[in-house]
Amino acid sequence: AKLWGGRFEESVTDTVEKFTESISFDKELYKHDIMGSKAHASMLAKQGLMSDGDRDSILRGLEEIERKIESGEFVWRTDREDVHMNIEAALTDMIGEPAKKLHTARSRNDQVLTDFRLWCRDAIDRILGSVKRLQAALVTLALKNEELIVPGYTHLQRAQPVLLPHLLLAYVEQLERDAGRLHDCRVRMNFCPLGACALAGTGLPIDRFMTSDALGFTSPMRNSIDAVSDRDFILEFLSANSITAVHLSRLGEEWVLWASEEFGFITPSDSVSTGSSIMPQKKNPDPMELVRGKSARVIGDLVTLLTLCKGLPLAYNRDLQEDKEPVFDSVKTVIGMLEVSAEFAHNITFNQERIRKALPAGHLDATTLADYLVHKGMPFRTSHDVVGRAVALCVSKNCQLQDLNLDEMRSISPVFDKDVYEYLGVDNAVKKFRSYGSTGSACVADQLDYWAAKLEINRSGNN
Amino acid sequence: AKLWGGRFEESVTDTVEKFTESISFDKELYKHDIMGSKAHASMLAKQGLMSDGDRDSILRGLEEIERKIESGEFVWRTDREDVHMNIEAALTDMIGEPAKKLHTARSRNDQVLTDFRLWCRDAIDRILGSVKRLQAALVTLALKNEELIVPGYTHLQRAQPVLLPHLLLAYVEQLERDAGRLHDCRVRMNFCPLGACALAGTGLPIDRFMTSDALGFTSPMRNSIDAVSDRDFILEFLSANSITAVHLSRLGEEWVLWASEEFGFITPSDSVSTGSSIMPQKKNPDPMELVRGKSARVIGDLVTLLTLCKGLPLAYNRDLQEDKEPVFDSVKTVIGMLEVSAEFAHNITFNQERIRKALPAGHLDATTLADYLVHKGMPFRTSHDVVGRAVALCVSKNCQLQDLNLDEMRSISPVFDKDVYEYLGVDNAVKKFRSYGSTGSACVADQLDYWAAKLEINRSGNN
Amino acid sequence: AKLWGGRFEESVTDTVEKFTESISFDKELYKHDIMGSKAHASMLAKQGLMSDGDRDSILRGLEEIERKIESGEFVWRTDREDVHMNIEAALTDMIGEPAKKLHTARSRNDQVLTDFRLWCRDAIDRILGSVKRLQAALVTLALKNEELIVPGYTHLQRAQPVLLPHLLLAYVEQLERDAGRLHDCRVRMNFCPLGACALAGTGLPIDRFMTSDALGFTSPMRNSIDAVSDRDFILEFLSANSITAVHLSRLGEEWVLWASEEFGFITPSDSVSTGSSIMPQKKNPDPMELVRGKSARVIGDLVTLLTLCKGLPLAYNRDLQEDKEPVFDSVKTVIGMLEVSAEFAHNITFNQERIRKALPAGHLDATTLADYLVHKGMPFRTSHDVVGRAVALCVSKNCQLQDLNLDEMRSISPVFDKDVYEYLGVDNAVKKFRSYGSTGSACVADQLDYWAAKLEINRSGNN
Amino acid sequence: AKLWGGRFEESVTDTVEKFTESISFDKELYKHDIMGSKAHASMLAKQGLMSDGDRDSILRGLEEIERKIESGEFVWRTDREDVHMNIEAALTDMIGEPAKKLHTARSRNDQVLTDFRLWCRDAIDRILGSVKRLQAALVTLALKNEELIVPGYTHLQRAQPVLLPHLLLAYVEQLERDAGRLHDCRVRMNFCPLGACALAGTGLPIDRFMTSDALGFTSPMRNSIDAVSDRDFILEFLSANSITAVHLSRLGEEWVLWASEEFGFITPSDSVSTGSSIMPQKKNPDPMELVRGKSARVIGDLVTLLTLCKGLPLAYNRDLQEDKEPVFDSVKTVIGMLEVSAEFAHNITFNQERIRKALPAGHLDATTLADYLVHKGMPFRTSHDVVGRAVALCVSKNCQLQDLNLDEMRSISPVFDKDVYEYLGVDNAVKKFRSYGSTGSACVADQLDYWAAKLEINRSGNN
Repeated sequence: AKLWGGRFEESVTDTVEKFTESISFDKELYKHDIMGSKAHASMLAKQGLMSDGDRDSILRGLEEIERKIESGEFVWRTDREDVHMNIEAALTDMIGEPAKKLHTARSRNDQVLTDFRLWCRDAIDRILGSVKRLQAALVTLALKNEELIVPGYTHLQRAQPVLLPHLLLAYVEQLERDAGRLHDCRVRMNFCPLGACALAGTGLPIDRFMTSDALGFTSPMRNSIDAVSDRDFILEFLSANSITAVHLSRLGEEWVLWASEEFGFITPSDSVSTGSSIMPQKKNPDPMELVRGKSARVIGDLVTLLTLCKGLPLAYNRDLQEDKEPVFDSVKTVIGMLEVSAEFAHNITFNQERIRKALPAGHLDATTLADYLVHKGMPFRTSHDVVGRAVALCVSKNCQLQDLNLDEMRSISPVFDKDVYEYLGVDNAVKKFRSYGSTGSACVADQLDYWAAKLEINRSGNN
Repeated sequence: AKLWGGRFEESVTDTVEKFTESISFDKELYKHDIMGSKAHASMLAKQGLMSDGDRDSILRGLEEIERKIESGEFVWRTDREDVHMNIEAALTDMIGEPAKKLHTARSRNDQVLTDFRLWCRDAIDRILGSVKRLQAALVTLALKNEELIVPGYTHLQRAQPVLLPHLLLAYVEQLERDAGRLHDCRVRMNFCPLGACALAGTGLPIDRFMTSDALGFTSPMRNSIDAVSDRDFILEFLSANSITAVHLSRLGEEWVLWASEEFGFITPSDSVSTGSSIMPQKKNPDPMELVRGKSARVIGDLVTLLTLCKGLPLAYNRDLQEDKEPVFDSVKTVIGMLEVSAEFAHNITFNQERIRKALPAGHLDATTLADYLVHKGMPFRTSHDVVGRAVALCVSKNCQLQDLNLDEMRSISPVFDKDVYEYLGVDNAVKKFRSYGSTGSACVADQLDYWAAKLEINRSGNN
Repeated sequence: AKLWGGRFEESVTDTVEKFTESISFDKELYKHDIMGSKAHASMLAKQGLMSDGDRDSILRGLEEIERKIESGEFVWRTDREDVHMNIEAALTDMIGEPAKKLHTARSRNDQVLTDFRLWCRDAIDRILGSVKRLQAALVTLALKNEELIVPGYTHLQRAQPVLLPHLLLAYVEQLERDAGRLHDCRVRMNFCPLGACALAGTGLPIDRFMTSDALGFTSPMRNSIDAVSDRDFILEFLSANSITAVHLSRLGEEWVLWASEEFGFITPSDSVSTGSSIMPQKKNPDPMELVRGKSARVIGDLVTLLTLCKGLPLAYNRDLQEDKEPVFDSVKTVIGMLEVSAEFAHNITFNQERIRKALPAGHLDATTLADYLVHKGMPFRTSHDVVGRAVALCVSKNCQLQDLNLDEMRSISPVFDKDVYEYLGVDNAVKKFRSYGSTGSACVADQLDYWAAKLEINRSGNN
Repeated sequence: AKLWGGRFEESVTDTVEKFTESISFDKELYKHDIMGSKAHASMLAKQGLMSDGDRDSILRGLEEIERKIESGEFVWRTDREDVHMNIEAALTDMIGEPAKKLHTARSRNDQVLTDFRLWCRDAIDRILGSVKRLQAALVTLALKNEELIVPGYTHLQRAQPVLLPHLLLAYVEQLERDAGRLHDCRVRMNFCPLGACALAGTGLPIDRFMTSDALGFTSPMRNSIDAVSDRDFILEFLSANSITAVHLSRLGEEWVLWASEEFGFITPSDSVSTGSSIMPQKKNPDPMELVRGKSARVIGDLVTLLTLCKGLPLAYNRDLQEDKEPVFDSVKTVIGMLEVSAEFAHNITFNQERIRKALPAGHLDATTLADYLVHKGMPFRTSHDVVGRAVALCVSKNCQLQDLNLDEMRSISPVFDKDVYEYLGVDNAVKKFRSYGSTGSACVADQLDYWAAKLEINRSGNN
């Protein structure tokens, strides 16, 4: 019989039991459920709602249950519905009467949210660790290839030359904001619902500040109905994860491109590649394809949660039981994506020679040339047009800008002088950058210093 | 070592192995994988690509493996990546050399899609069975309450009186279109990718029509690149499921409303209700709340798949490994929603007395009254205005339209005559409906006949 | 000819021009585009990249263009593609040569992001204003009905009695977190991309700190590639909007329920209701239905953006032009939802009498009764069971808990004593609540004080 | 005053009017609204519910209104809410009394769905036309490059050689299924809701079969509640559009890759390319980037609709007013994507020389070599391993498989004989394919014949 079965004459059908159970997934919360129950029991004892002896039995019983769960001895029962009832019923089996006092001034509604907020708080901390590891892997990779010039792209067309570290640091910046979002989310969720009970609070003399403190929350939530009905803390959490996942999907796309025969920028080691069951020559960058692909499920999890919560009246509705699996899946997926990306970063080699050889294609110095004309006093729009015509000439001659002789240049604009050749070619072009945040060598070196210090990477050791 | 390891010198790291494995979920395909392999081996033998002896060893080996899987003896190994490699490697362990010929003229790319299409085809058949069971449950419920008049709502405001069966049949109609979509999807997906190999087909003399026939497909797919790269068959499938799930979410919402104290239309039996851990009096219609809520994950699964496929170039990309879990989840969820809804339908009682008593509220006969004036020759817009003023009078007097006396009526419009009372009151109002598809008794009886026959329900027995 | 047309020999086809234009929607950015261009021109002049005279012509020209746009005189041209090119070309038409210097050390890539961040910053401020107005409307409504007890629901089943203000404040709390999210988003987005140029920065001697300051940004963005390629600031913004929208959809659902004949809690005034074209008696709470419904498009807008950004390589890709419409739509929709909800709140009346009369139904005092037994020393699980049986007795007798006499109570448990009647009935039950955050009168009064002060509402005036 | 204003004493506030109006977008339905009203009026007259004279006034009036709308003379008024009320009120202004009879036995609920189904039916036909044009463009492009061999990819790694037409036909196949889905959707939606009225039908003697026939529907819908409440026809429609959009996003990705410097497969003409405001050399394949990007909004539109409908009780709810914009946007976007893709296909040139030169890279003949060994009797798994080792040897020697001499080959396996060289090299490899649906020349030529005939393309003229 269910623990809530007082007024019921029939038990639920098998179909219903199977459809409504949550123990198959919410057992993930066991550690935080036990943590919450221990804090609750201690508070009840302090407030005179149970004896110290009962409290001690409960605490010892819960610890024993935790031990059993971790050793695999604990038997989860579907007929006991969820993690809360499984643990409470097992406690009752173990210690008898005192266990029946544990649920005093508590509902599963506030209990599950206490567990879940604690779980999410830990999950955020784990993700933050993985974010930092990926940032460090990217910075390390940048330090290994500090001087490497690669084509920068817009529209996947070659645009301007950039230093590889500059490009890798763009991802480090994204990840830093991802961490910021998670941190904000953590601060906002770290309030304690325990004591909100079913929805209205209680008339029993509990001390919500005590349990809140014991569990490391900032303070109890101010409104009991809000406490049990809202799920914005996980909507925000999964939003943050989705943005991180989108960032990683872009990294995945880029590295898959770079590993292609056509780009040929990187060679992943065998230890992060897989082969084909039919084509003997294949070596595929699967982990980064999966990083790209798995972003979809992180987004799908968010959509599930948003759609789930849409249009529900106050306070708790059973629909909300569906809130956990998307969160568990999102967390597991994002951590996997971060970790495997870091592993991949540690296992790729840049094909410096090949990249270097391919750099002349694409007129990457054209914008630098336009800037040259601006230096000479030509309005930018005019210089853009002039250089556009110079490029057209190169296309027709199948040559690079630096291959044009001064006469050819002057036939397009008399402003060109022989110092123009100091602006042409990829090396010259990249040297000219100097604006804050640009790909100029000094700017990029400063940024590498900044990030190496922040991430505690031994910069010199990596050069 | 992996079966594709010929050119590899290092094995993948643990992080990568764990991140890229699929055996934890794609073992769901085992039965269809074995079915496909058996058809493939038979074809290879017939085409002279293996001996009959080899084929027989393979067939017996595969049957033994199937038996072991179903009895729980089979050990799935993560280092063997996926269901295909697990089964092939186990077959090799069991029968040796001949097993090495099984993957002739086949890639995992066409193999997995063959498995997956077979699995989906079966899943559609299972869902169609559940759809029909829910339709039957709804019609049965309608037959039990054939004469019951309930308020019809728009904007959740009482609108016009309708027969309960009319309302229940609206869901039956929705489900019939759901079935139609699944059927169309089944027809469109039932083409065989086997023999497309990695992406380009093969030079070996295979017979794709033979395997296609053996597996019950309509014919082989016409283009090998299309065969291995597209996933529209599951996008369509999950779209169909999402629409079904939205329909069921509406049923869930409606029945949750009906079970509330305020509506009080239905009483679910204890066997489909659950209680509260804190509030002893509660009896909640949880299954229908979960039906409503679980629609969200079916939608989320679709979003995952659409996002997954967006922007992938041809042909196969590893991202597509992520295509299975959303489909498995969607199918399991939709079947659960359909089955539990049917179970709920079989376990509710309509509170006929209470519904009857509450019917006068809401001026449900106002539109019938406007039609009365149209019968008398008044333009509808004018009659709408006249009745609107009559309702305003009722609101101010806190009475029903039938409570107005003829003088009061005539003070609003002289067209009213004493036959007006034949149009007032809910019973009169409902009797007036006669248009095709309307809630008129004869129309609804015809519809019940239609559906009872179609669903093979013994109509008389239920009256 | 396009301003970038130097190397082009053909102009784009009509189909392409129509498909790729953005002027039909990005003109929304005109004010911020002009603001950015003015800051940019001033910086260029200060850095010696244009003369003060050119700068002054530009500033005057831009102001004139702004005036023309606002007066409706300005003609937007599709062949000029977007808001940037329309304004620059118009400036050139107006002031000639100096205009050609405006785009020095600037690309549309950094320009549009500068505009867009400025626009979003303003949009957030507007939404924050609307959030506060809705909070104030809810608190005002609470103050008008400070003593009103309503049923609190879980599973849409009557659960425990709550004070209406307690329930309304749950929404105020949600909105406060919504505001917090927007605030965090604003802080994180308020960095200046201007000067990142196409993707790599520039060799021209610009001062990015000057433009950043002039435009009210915290500082320039640190990495030029990140600056032009990432869109996380709007992903975060639309996530925050989606969560707000979900909150409002729940308010919408609740108020639609409350306005139904069956709940009958509120009567909206005619000024926020609409009628039916066919049913003369109808008065529908359409604004709140639309609030509920419009949450869907806010979620859809977020999904569009997440899917858009998924899998794009660095840096800018034209796909990203699609980033604006979802943001504009999300902002407009959320503001509309907030404003109309506030208007609705100001135009509803609670039917105190009717609510009061219906309160006895649902055994709202059952949990209070269980707490009574806990006070008497009974373990909670036992008391839950005892009260469950008392409720079952009431159901069979069709009465309330307070209608049971002491003998009947004692037949269930001898612990009941005559002081039990101080715990029964809704008024007694609500009086018993005392935990922090509960629905107890004193707690709720404190909360009302807190919010009235914070929102600067004259509390006494409203009583 | 509103046409439904009989019982109302106050008009709605400006905020509410602006928030609830739909005329700003639903005027898109005007043509189908008028079409529906004409059929309805004719039926009312035939059934004796209005005189022939009234009918004729109405028909003439509606035609005049249609003319005015199309000439731009018609003034849409927000205070008249929607397209239906705008047209009806304008008709009343124009012809007086008879107009008041038009809304007899009709509600806006069934009216708007009639309009909307008609609109969608036409939209499907327009999309089907665009699908066919893109298929024709792809087949034409295939015919222009009938002999061109390109690398086929999996994991974006070179896999096997394929004929370009084979690859382009993969998209033609996808589009054919897209058309099939739209066709099925059209059949399923082509039922007439007119006469369902508000939700319950009517007591007036209408003939629903007459209006259904007149409007080209298959038959009237069977259930009036279903008719006004369900939106599955647009959920299915937007699902079909989303799948098409995903297909096109993949084409977009592929063509963007092909247009890159690194792949260099295609050169788009200037007429389908755009430039950069800062980088004078840029020529970007923007239309295909936008095709890829716009898929996101089509998916977002679907999510909006699914979320919108989730959890709504029967029958009509005002939320459903939000159903139109996503459909309009989805249709417009998908048509644009299809048309611009066709235009792009007509404006690209394959760089045959460059592609040819790059073909040797990637060991595209490795699988053919493995098949060679199978021909010699080696089990496939063994041959896969042997060729894997041959590839490893090539990698270490930086050569192609065909560059290995027979001794080197035999050092790996003695099975190699000198006929092996007939299997090596891309041309040999592609010649070996012969399975149905493969990239073998004969198979592809058959497929081209099939599609050219089906799409009525003059095959010979294109060779």
